[in-house]
Order: sequence, then C-alpha cells, then structure tokens
Amino acid sequence: MKGFFNPRTVAVAGASKTSMKLGNVVLANLLRLGFRGRICPLHPDGGEIMGLPASPSLGHVEGEVDVAVAVLPREAVHGFVRECGSAGVRRVIVSAAGFADDGVEGKEMQRRLLETARGQGIRLMGPNSVGTISTESGFVTSLMTLEPLKPGNLSIVAQTGLFAGGFARWISSTQRFGLAKVACLGNKADVDEVDVLQYLREDAQTGVIAVYTEGLRDGRKFWELAREVTSRKPVVLLKGGRTDLGVRMAAGHTGSLAGEDAVYRGALAQAGVVQVEDVEGLFGCSKALSYCPLPRGPRLGIVSITGAGTVLAADACRRRGLPLPPLKKETLRRIGEVLPDWAWMGNPADIWSATLFADVEGAYRVVLSAMADQDDVDMLAVLFTLVPESDFDGAALLSEIKERHPEKPVLACFLGSSREDRERWFASLEDIGIPVYDSVERCVEAAWSLARCAERRRGERFPWGEQVQIGA
Amino acid sequence: MKGFFNPRTVAVAGASKTSMKLGNVVLANLLRLGFRGRICPLHPDGGEIMGLPASPSLGHVEGEVDVAVAVLPREAVHGFVRECGSAGVRRVIVSAAGFADDGVEGKEMQRRLLETARGQGIRLMGPNSVGTISTESGFVTSLMTLEPLKPGNLSIVAQTGLFAGGFARWISSTQRFGLAKVACLGNKADVDEVDVLQYLREDAQTGVIAVYTEGLRDGRKFWELAREVTSRKPVVLLKGGRTDLGVRMAAGHTGSLAGEDAVYRGALAQAGVVQVEDVEGLFGCSKALSYCPLPRGPRLGIVSITGAGTVLAADACRRRGLPLPPLKKETLRRIGEVLPDWAWMGNPADIWSATLFADVEGAYRVVLSAMADQDDVDMLAVLFTLVPESDFDGAALLSEIKERHPEKPVLACFLGSSREDRERWFASLEDIGIPVYDSVERCVEAAWSLARCAERRRGERFPWGEQVQIGA
Repeated sequence: MKGFFNPRTVAVAGASKTSMKLGNVVLANLLRLGFRGRICPLHPDGGEIMGLPASPSLGHVEGEVDVAVAVLPREAVHGFVRECGSAGVRRVIVSAAGFADDGVEGKEMQRRLLETARGQGIRLMGPNSVGTISTESGFVTSLMTLEPLKPGNLSIVAQTGLFAGGFARWISSTQRFGLAKVACLGNKADVDEVDVLQYLREDAQTGVIAVYTEGLRDGRKFWELAREVTSRKPVVLLKGGRTDLGVRMAAGHTGSLAGEDAVYRGALAQAGVVQVEDVEGLFGCSKALSYCPLPRGPRLGIVSITGAGTVLAADACRRRGLPLPPLKKETLRRIGEVLPDWAWMGNPADIWSATLFADVEGAYRVVLSAMADQDDVDMLAVLFTLVPESDFDGAALLSEIKERHPEKPVLACFLGSSREDRERWFASLEDIGIPVYDSVERCVEAAWSLARCAERRRGERFPWGEQVQIGA
Repeated sequence: MKGFFNPRTVAVAGASKTSMKLGNVVLANLLRLGFRGRICPLHPDGGEIMGLPASPSLGHVEGEVDVAVAVLPREAVHGFVRECGSAGVRRVIVSAAGFADDGVEGKEMQRRLLETARGQGIRLMGPNSVGTISTESGFVTSLMTLEPLKPGNLSIVAQTGLFAGGFARWISSTQRFGLAKVACLGNKADVDEVDVLQYLREDAQTGVIAVYTEGLRDGRKFWELAREVTSRKPVVLLKGGRTDLGVRMAAGHTGSLAGEDAVYRGALAQAGVVQVEDVEGLFGCSKALSYCPLPRGPRLGIVSITGAGTVLAADACRRRGLPLPPLKKETLRRIGEVLPDWAWMGNPADIWSATLFADVEGAYRVVLSAMADQDDVDMLAVLFTLVPESDFDGAALLSEIKERHPEKPVLACFLGSSREDRERWFASLEDIGIPVYDSVERCVEAAWSLARCAERRRGERFPWGEQVQIGA
C-alpha cells in the first residue's frame, strides 16, 4: 500500500499540453502540494507538460514507477493497465466511472479489468476513484484543485471522491485539524477498506481513522481487522446506504452491496467502531479524537452561561447515555463563592446567576476549576454564547484547566456568535487542542465518541447512563 | 401585546451614568437599532444618560409609557412593578433571574410579583426575560449588544435569551434571512407562548413562527391556538427538556414543567406544528419556510454532482418519508441527451457521468429542467460540491428553474467547499430565495418541513412514503 501514498515516482496519463484536462489538475496539485517524489506525465508526443518532461509511454520512463494514475476515458483504461503490466508498474489508480457503478456491461468491464490487473500482479485502486492524499509526502491524485493541507494525525478512507475534493477544500480553508492520509476508493474492484486499514494501522502518522463506506465487500474480514485496530487507534465510521433507497443509490454510485443496517451497526459496535449518522458527525467526532486524550470514563461535566444550553445538553447526554455526575460538597462549596445565596447549581451548571456576582470570566473559572477537580468528572464541555458582554480570553482560561488536568478532555460549544467572534474564539481554542462545535448535540456526540474509544482502548466496561430515545 | 413590540414610549430602569451596566446596553441597542419611539431612561438623579434625558421615576415621565424595562436586581423588582402600577404603566419586562428558576423562595417571590402585577392590571414579561425585538419599530430590550437586523417574515418565540443574544448576532452577521418579531419569555410568570402566538397570528409582518419552549403552561390552550395558526402560518417548534434530565434542567432554567415528550409530539403533530430536534433544525426549517412557496406535495427531485450525495439524500428522504418519484420516459429522454450511452440516471440523479459529456453547468441545467418539468416532482433539492472544476453561476441557473416553476420550492446543499466559494454561492443563492444547507440531512429536513406545512395548509393528506428508522 505504501506506494499508493508515498511513492517515489508517479506517472500520470491523461494530461493535455494545450488545455486544462483533469490529468492536468492532478499534475498541478502534485506541484502545488509539493510532492517530494518524481512526477512523470505521459503523452504520446513526449515533450513537456506544465514544465515537466513527458514520456510517450510507461516503457519510456527511466527507473521504477511506483504508481500510475490513469485519468483516461473508460474505454482506454484496460489498455493502460496492460501497459502498466508490461512496464512493470505494480500500482494503478483508475478514475474513470462507468464500471460496476453502471449496469451489466460495466460490471463485466470491471471484472475483465480486475482479471488483467491480477494477472499482471497489479494492485488497482478504483475504478471511479480519485485516489489518495498524503500530507507526509505531498502526494495527491485528486481531480479537483486543492490547496495545501496541514499535516495531522487524522486519516480518511472513503468511498467517494468528496474527501479529496470539496471536503478537502473545506478543511484547508476553514478547519484547524490536520490530515495524515486520505484514500478515496471508488468502486473498490481490488483495493478496499481492509487494505487501507491494514496500512493505516501501521502508519506512524495516523492516529485516528475516519471511514465513509457504502458497503463492505468482506464484512467479516473488516470486522476482525477493525476490532484489532480500534484497540490501538480510534475508528469512526459513516455508512451510506442504510435504507432500501440508499442501498439502491449506493449500487449506482459505487456498485456496492450495502448490507442490512442493523447487522452492520451491531457488529461494528462490537468491534469498537464509533458509528455516526452523517458527515458532520464523522468530522465532529474525528476532530475530538484527533485533539483530545481519551478520558478515563464517560462522565461529563458541563458548564454553560445559558440555561437553554444546559437543557439541550442534558437531553443530548441522556440520548447518548453520558452520565452527568452530581456536584460534590467540596465542588459546591467552591462554586458557592461566586453565587448569590439564592442561586442553585448542578451539572450541567448554569453559571448565569454567578455572572451577576463575579465577572463572566471569573464565573467560568471558579465553576470550571471546581468541576475539573472533582474526581468523577472525566471530561468537560464548556458552552459559550459569544456576545460582547461575555467576551474574554477563553483560550487562556481553558489552557489553565487543561494544564491542571491534562488527562481530561475539554470540548467547547458556541451557541450563537457573530462571524468575527466565532472565528477568533474558534482559532484560539482549536489551536490549543480544544475541539469546538456550533451545536450542543454535536459537542455531546463528540464527547460520547471519546468515551466509546476510551472504553475500547481500556478493554473495560464503563459506567454508562441510561439511554433515552428522543425524537421521531 | 402590541406595546411589547412596537411601543411609542419605553422607560428603562437600571442604566448607569458612569459605567456600562446592563441597562445601558438596552439603551445603546435602542439607539443603534433606530427605535422609532421615545426612550426614557430612569435614574434617581435625573439628568442625562447616553444623551437621553433621564427621569427620577416613572411618575416624572410626561405622557404615557407603553412599556417599562426593569434591568434591576431581583430585590428591586417588586417595588418597581408597584411603581409601574402607580404611574399607570401597563406592561413591564423583568430581566432579573432568581424567581421560579430558583428554589422555593424564588417561586414564592414570583407568585407575589405576579399577584402585584395582576392587581394593578399590568402584563408582565419574565422574570428572567430579555424581552423583545421588533424590526418593524426598531424596538429591542436585549441585554446583549446587537447589530441591526434585517426585517423579514420570521418571528421567534423563545424561552431563552439566546435568540435576542448570541443567535441574533449570528443572524445579523452571517445569515440572509430577515426577522419580524422576537420574544424571549423567560419564566413566563404571566406572558407566555399563547399570548405571543395570538399576537403573531394577526401581525402582518409575521409569515413564519419559530418556537423554542421548555414546557407549556396550558398545553391544551396552546394546542388549540397552534392548530388554528398553522392553517395560516407555519409554526416550527423545538422542545427543550425532552428527557428526565432535560426536564430537571428546564426547571432550573425557567421554572418550567416540561411534559411527557411523546405526548407533546403526538399532540403538536396533530396541530400541524413542525417539530425539530435541535436549534439547527429550528433555523434550517424556518429559513426554508421563510423563503419558499409551499409545495403541492412531498415528492422531491434531487440532483447531485456527487454520488455520495445521492446515497445520503436517499437515506435522509427515507427517514423522513419523502417520496422520490421515479423519472418518467420524457424526463429520461431529455436527460439522455447529456449522458454517455452507458450511464444510468434516476432520482436522486447523480450527474457525475453527465459532466463528462456536457460541462458541469450544462449537466445541471438539462437534468434540473427535465426534472422540474415532471409534474409529480413537487420540489427540488440541488446538491453541489464547490470546487474550481465545477464552478459556474449557480444562482443564474436556479433563477431560470424558479422562473419556469415558481410554484416549486428549490433548496440547495453544499457538500464541502472553500470558505470563499461557500460565501459567494451562499449569498447569491439565498438572495434569490433559495435556502442553502451544509448537509444533505438538513436540506432534506427543510424540504420535509415545507411538505408538512403544505399538507396542513391544504388540509389534505399527502402521499408520503414509508418512514424508515435509521441510527441508534
């Protein structure tokens, strides 16, 4: 697998000398993201493409080619894979669609393509795949123009090109977390989640693995591998195609056979995989796992300046089974120092009344410190409303809390804010490793994922609370 | 109620001459939002506050005072309400907390406060209320600094100050929809959702009503009123306190008695109220209802450049019971013109293969036009991935579609995008009345809310599809 992520030499077929074809996007991305290996464009006429010397065929490229990227029409793919075989190229990424994602004819074409690849000892990623990104080597095969991505410990395996397209652009322009490896597998004729997961398990750069899949070819094998991986690295998974209609669309998208939802869920939960409901959950949980230490337990302390935040947070915790330990005598005594004597405080703690006594920062400091010091509080969620009246240096305060208790994850949530306030607070908190959410439910979901992974890592049963079903 | 939203004269108690107390925030907001009535600060020493002549007491204010805003400590509230009575002021907004949101003593204080108000013929909003906003009159009583808000047809009734605080700042700095009236009711000792809903029913500026409540005092009365209102104006509702824990927090926040979740849900659904699960859903659905015509039915046509989008959208529609009508012969014939002959297209339509033939804009145009013309497609959801390779003037295209079928709502979703692309597309689409979402599930939820309200308005049963439960 390594050659799919950190090749020394890549050959790219399908770039034009005169127009900006998709193959040229691949070359431009490799140059822009600073690929540290050798780039060999292929062009029947040789010459130069985008300043790089082009070879008429794979056979003309000097030295070993670790991976070939075929940005070619469906009809040209088979011939190119044969050419790879002759030239001794052992890895190929095929972007063309119209194989198993299409009807009977496409399925047959995919079967023959795979047969040829296997016969030549070639590992094939795709078809219908935009390939990989590695921030370690600057390698990228996306067909969409990307900006440089920050290196980090999160790797993504996805059965869609979105994660090497629109989502990659979203990450590079709005997010603070970094990426290790991204693999967009498409139809998975050959290379699938199992191959990539095996690689990421050993990859030193990868600390957390996010998966989007529309159906696992060998559920049993994935399950066994995942069970092993999750004891070392958290795995978060979103399954597309969870209803009859979604399954039908998945067949059209990547030719996948999406299995029974309930079966998936049960098996994956047993394997310690964190399952989420949507892309927001996938990123939200992955970010928390990327930033935070794993907590000692699932018990959450919540501090909020808004009462509505405490209500929504309590509902969300109940839905997820996250216990909210009651405040102990000593905690209450310390909090009492900033409370008017009529006021009441619990967990979740509504600090509104404390802000009448202390300033906003002081109220947060006293309540957060006291709660963090309580030994049965395993992690903290801090809810803010960013208005000028409650503005202060939140990152400085939460740094103090983190230094006091580096073993306890701290998460933050903004309930409303102007764009400027949000961006300032978001950057300053995420830069010190506090994941930020724009909704209470997302924040609690992320805390839940931390506790689930901690339970898996420790191999012990946590004291979860009752789970209450709410909503339709 | 009118005097709570569009008073001619407001008196404000609790502003300081020397420091920036919360009462000063109220005055500053009234000035900044251009309140068109008369502002009378109250101060024992008289003189001037923030350029406004101050009166030593309500009795010294000339002419009628329509509403008094008490930004006073808990202990001073009762005396102030008595003063209102003597001065003939018939409406008072009380911001102080520590009444029914606190223990036994607070409950008793609230009871006595209400008794005094009632005895004097005073309507009381609060305690624990930050009052109202009216973009019609520029009236605002929030304790948080606000920026001017765009007038629009959405009104909000909430049992938290967030909607006149952080969320109002979020709306003014990032959103394109406008507001009519906002009421933050706090403990609802007197004025409650029923009073405000009655007012909004008749308010010409209000077209859509969003409600956040932690418990209705008179469920039956609300139900009867809501049933009547929803036949004319959509009502979207988020209930805080839906689990035992949430209920306990609601008691601490606003002293509310939150009822049984299932009972609420059933009754409100019957009354035609759209119930959502979180604040994002509240804003997401309200925005769609604010922008779009109500569709003729629930049948959704979906067009996506990404296959994963079609899979996630199909799952979301199945969860919500939104039927996806199959494409008819004539629709398929028209779409066929931009399809390679091997490609397949359904609903949701994955136009990826069409972009190989036509350009991206052309592919969207042909597929969207054909689908919009199909008579059993009641509304359209368009999924975009904003990358340079798929950039075009989306607003121009969707304008064409809307002009062709002004009766069909069109919603949009961005699956990943850089900050700049998102902001550009977001502004241009929302400015032509197309609500934009960052997740497929939110987009489908909004379409569902449109169909639910249309069904209620028409008073007929729509052909909903089967609803499939997914997730934990």
